[in-house]
Amino acid sequence: MTPPLDRLPTFADIRDAARRIAPYATRTPLVEWAALNERVGARVLVKPETLQRTGSFKFRGAYNRIAQLDPAACPGGVVAYSSGNHAQGVAAAAALAGLPAVIVMPEDTPRMKRDNTQGYGAEVVTYDRASEDREEIARAIAEERGAVIVPPYDDPDIVAGQGTVGLEMAEDAAARGVTLDHVVSNASGGGLIAGISLAFAELSPATRVWVAEPRGFDDHARSLASGRREANEAATGSICDALLARTPGEITFAINSRRLAGGLVASDDEVRAAMAYAFSTLKLVVEPGGAVGLAALLSGRLEIESGATVGVVLSGGNVDRESFCAMIG
Amino acid sequence: MTPPLDRLPTFADIRDAARRIAPYATRTPLVEWAALNERVGARVLVKPETLQRTGSFKFRGAYNRIAQLDPAACPGGVVAYSSGNHAQGVAAAAALAGLPAVIVMPEDTPRMKRDNTQGYGAEVVTYDRASEDREEIARAIAEERGAVIVPPYDDPDIVAGQGTVGLEMAEDAAARGVTLDHVVSNASGGGLIAGISLAFAELSPATRVWVAEPRGFDDHARSLASGRREANEAATGSICDALLARTPGEITFAINSRRLAGGLVASDDEVRAAMAYAFSTLKLVVEPGGAVGLAALLSGRLEIESGATVGVVLSGGNVDRESFCAMIG
Repeated sequence: MTPPLDRLPTFADIRDAARRIAPYATRTPLVEWAALNERVGARVLVKPETLQRTGSFKFRGAYNRIAQLDPAACPGGVVAYSSGNHAQGVAAAAALAGLPAVIVMPEDTPRMKRDNTQGYGAEVVTYDRASEDREEIARAIAEERGAVIVPPYDDPDIVAGQGTVGLEMAEDAAARGVTLDHVVSNASGGGLIAGISLAFAELSPATRVWVAEPRGFDDHARSLASGRREANEAATGSICDALLARTPGEITFAINSRRLAGGLVASDDEVRAAMAYAFSTLKLVVEPGGAVGLAALLSGRLEIESGATVGVVLSGGNVDRESFCAMIG
Repeated sequence: MTPPLDRLPTFADIRDAARRIAPYATRTPLVEWAALNERVGARVLVKPETLQRTGSFKFRGAYNRIAQLDPAACPGGVVAYSSGNHAQGVAAAAALAGLPAVIVMPEDTPRMKRDNTQGYGAEVVTYDRASEDREEIARAIAEERGAVIVPPYDDPDIVAGQGTVGLEMAEDAAARGVTLDHVVSNASGGGLIAGISLAFAELSPATRVWVAEPRGFDDHARSLASGRREANEAATGSICDALLARTPGEITFAINSRRLAGGLVASDDEVRAAMAYAFSTLKLVVEPGGAVGLAALLSGRLEIESGATVGVVLSGGNVDRESFCAMIG
């Protein structure tokens, strides 16, 4: 096998990641609402990664990756390209590791995400989406400064870090005597759901793990169906700004293609309705990308056997007030 | 002693309440945010009762009270007067106990709270705030139908039920090896904070429990200072619609006057800022009354020793979209 497929993450890597991130990451709870159970017609246990440090699960993978760097080998610290949650995760993780961080962001990144990223101590370098290539810029900075690139998903340490979400879900469900029959989580590059599926394969192999995606950006669902990495036609056009990766990652698809039960799709309107439901009933602030799994569930996309229990991940809550209030209206 | 002071709730009552509500209430987590710790300059552990069944802690006391009723003795079920969270708590608890519920609400109750209350299966009877007395209406209904009144706070079973919030906080803090030096919670009639202070007196007697109130509605703070039950001058005029009880309860003040460390006050603007902070950083939807403790903390009203740990209760999240979006703007 060629890199990066020569080193797929394992369950042991997830265990190691859990130990590594424990002092800094939040062990988010697994929460149940009677009203949600009634609404879905099944027992639903929610994993609100919205409560995670930096407001999304991304801190887990970023810290797991960065904590393993040898500072002497990267005097320039770390570089990442992201307009959103990965940027904040890397910035916060680098600060904790005592390393400088440069985040390459598009010029039109929402003010709040840029401010948060700088707030965690990172330097932000902007580029023009139309004329420049962010990966190229990141590579040039890494070379020039002696820095290491922290990729958003196609990396074994990143996948292992995100997999701690699944580890915690399986453990916390078991602690209350429950086996999850289904787990639903969203995907962009697929690092989170790859990690989750690895954790469940080990701890709860009967659990079926489903990927949820915005309509028109269902590259994972189509790739699962065809058996090879399919690409989305469009690069923009969904309110789910965190879920617009063009195609599944190589490492992530190598895992997901073997582990996932299938794909569920939700429209932008269904995502808005799920955000409004999370606001009014769960009292949680969920960003559009983070609400896709809930949207699929509320829209009846998952066929649920009588008496089954479903876990659903709310992956992030980084949305500014104006967008949020418009979307839940 | 005269009723109702002849039967003050005890810690054993809180333990019993915890057992009683366990199948139906959510054991809400104790959550920590690095960003909040930095902002406050101390370790802060948050108890989000916003995630509780019916969106506030009120379900705990209501269920604890109603589950102990003998259905044969109250063929007409239960009656309560409330425009908000107690209404929803009683409605949901009565439905679980298989009892009918009548809630006496002002005609001008926000649509959402009325709809939720009816959604839990309760009958809503409205009255005119200006010309009618809600307690009198409730008494008349109770007599006519053979129903029992479930009071909002001045009742030992209600206080014991709300005290499970403190029980869980003390237990969950201990489970992570922490003793809370301070706990801050809001009060209207004082049932929640009375229950919390009873739980801490038993499980963590070194913890100092503080009551937080909106400016101008600091009847508890002034009562603690004077040693007798003081009343607020105004009946309305704060955005904290859940915290407008005119004076501390008799039972609750009998407990609070002996147990509380003192009172903290926050202005409406500070409450709005705390709601906005909860939205943007904690990703939690908190109603104004539920954010007063956080507001007092963020505004520096509590003097915190170096190295201290503070627990803060977010008591509820029942706020409609329009109000919420205006308040966090």
